[in-house]
Amino acid sequence: MRQVFLNDRLVPENQAQISVFDRGFVFADAVYEVTAVLDGRLIDFRGHLARLRRSLGELDLTLPMTDAALLEAHRAVVAANAVEQGLVYLQVSRGVSDRDFRFPDPQTSPTVVLFTQKKTFLDDPLVARGLHVTVHDDLRWQRSDIKTTQLLYACMVKSRAARAGADDAWMQRDGLITEAASANAWIVTADGVVRTRQLSREILAGITREAVLSVAEARGLQVEEGAFSLDDALHAKEAFMTSATGFVSPVVRIDGAAIGDGRPGPVTMALRERYLTLMRDTAI
Amino acid sequence: MRQVFLNDRLVPENQAQISVFDRGFVFADAVYEVTAVLDGRLIDFRGHLARLRRSLGELDLTLPMTDAALLEAHRAVVAANAVEQGLVYLQVSRGVSDRDFRFPDPQTSPTVVLFTQKKTFLDDPLVARGLHVTVHDDLRWQRSDIKTTQLLYACMVKSRAARAGADDAWMQRDGLITEAASANAWIVTADGVVRTRQLSREILAGITREAVLSVAEARGLQVEEGAFSLDDALHAKEAFMTSATGFVSPVVRIDGAAIGDGRPGPVTMALRERYLTLMRDTAI
Repeated sequence: MRQVFLNDRLVPENQAQISVFDRGFVFADAVYEVTAVLDGRLIDFRGHLARLRRSLGELDLTLPMTDAALLEAHRAVVAANAVEQGLVYLQVSRGVSDRDFRFPDPQTSPTVVLFTQKKTFLDDPLVARGLHVTVHDDLRWQRSDIKTTQLLYACMVKSRAARAGADDAWMQRDGLITEAASANAWIVTADGVVRTRQLSREILAGITREAVLSVAEARGLQVEEGAFSLDDALHAKEAFMTSATGFVSPVVRIDGAAIGDGRPGPVTMALRERYLTLMRDTAI
Repeated sequence: MRQVFLNDRLVPENQAQISVFDRGFVFADAVYEVTAVLDGRLIDFRGHLARLRRSLGELDLTLPMTDAALLEAHRAVVAANAVEQGLVYLQVSRGVSDRDFRFPDPQTSPTVVLFTQKKTFLDDPLVARGLHVTVHDDLRWQRSDIKTTQLLYACMVKSRAARAGADDAWMQRDGLITEAASANAWIVTADGVVRTRQLSREILAGITREAVLSVAEARGLQVEEGAFSLDDALHAKEAFMTSATGFVSPVVRIDGAAIGDGRPGPVTMALRERYLTLMRDTAI
């Protein structure tokens, strides 16, 4: 049985329980991170830690655990579950208190949960074929830069995409693509520019996005951070998305229309390979 | 110790626990209702049930519990906790499944939680004085008509209001007041019109709002459902807010500025009294 890290120790998953009064349950007053595991090691862990600290700070949520303790907890769940390839999910909520919208006493102990999922995402046949995505209005709250568990809309559009026979969902606001439901969205334009939306409160500052920007620049590609429309994407040579566990994933159909020649593009696949090599070299 | 209703039975609150894999915890994939209790009886319960069914329907969330069973559960927690004055909180989440954004098999059992809070809201000194509110940009998702647990932004603005020495928070979008953080917002204009924003996907269809609209019309007041600006509110004769547990609560200061003569207004207090009389007469 899977072992879950809960607050300060490992417990079997069927004993990993929290109070119904946990603010993560009643108010979505919680943040999370997902770190990929390859070869049993954590990918870009420092980036995830930094973003976690930022999310906590934006919400005045105090987590009395050092970076070293968080690393130790991650390694403990990876080891206990013998994860070679997969992910570690970390969630921190503001803890348990009687229901009141106002934040409780800052001394309230946060709830800390880590669990693993095994995935064989390196051999994902969808990557070889390329993903099909549908596009939806972005109705999320306007602080999508904070990685909170207010994920219902992402669930809704991913479910709609699945019902439409697609693999994932992109979103647009005011005529411009914001991001994918749980990933950043990218295109390679007809003139070879690698483009992804600039950071703002409307999108998550993807850890993988940041690494891929560096990789693209290091390869001498022309890179631009700026918004693009659905129409721009439909006329792009390539499209892809980046996330901690999807890495760099080619997108070959958007709302049913083929992008480029309808197959994973060479720029995308080169970025994916280079990204993965770099990440495996620096995993901890 | 307080007794909590969890799925199908009453348990002591310290045993009211759910899995960390509950979708209410990891995705805010959950809806809720709050019903006031006066004289040990449920206020406007049919309205809350109807809205719960609507919220569930909008999210394709199936709850295999009849209205009669839900009423029985409400009465069970009220009785077990000897609540004369207070509230029943009901939350339904999509249940437990391994983390995946896409909605799981519709056969997944939802998690059903009911708990009570005792409140002496009839003698609230804040009502006699009138509430002070601050106004904040409405950054919530654009389906605020669905009563989900994605309440973090409401928590944030209520906490900000409290830090500013105010009692509650109102929100505005595109220059117009949408609603309060957990209530509907109203004004009585200089020419005596009772005004509250029209229903749309941007606000919750308040059960109390609906009842107060009827009460106001029955009293021969001129009632208009339409948006108003912060400036309209600052120049109003009276302001108030409505919610299941706040009933009709006078607002006497908005962002520090006095409304009318800075005291609870006669129209507001008459509506409050009439509303409470009607509700106590029809409580079950």
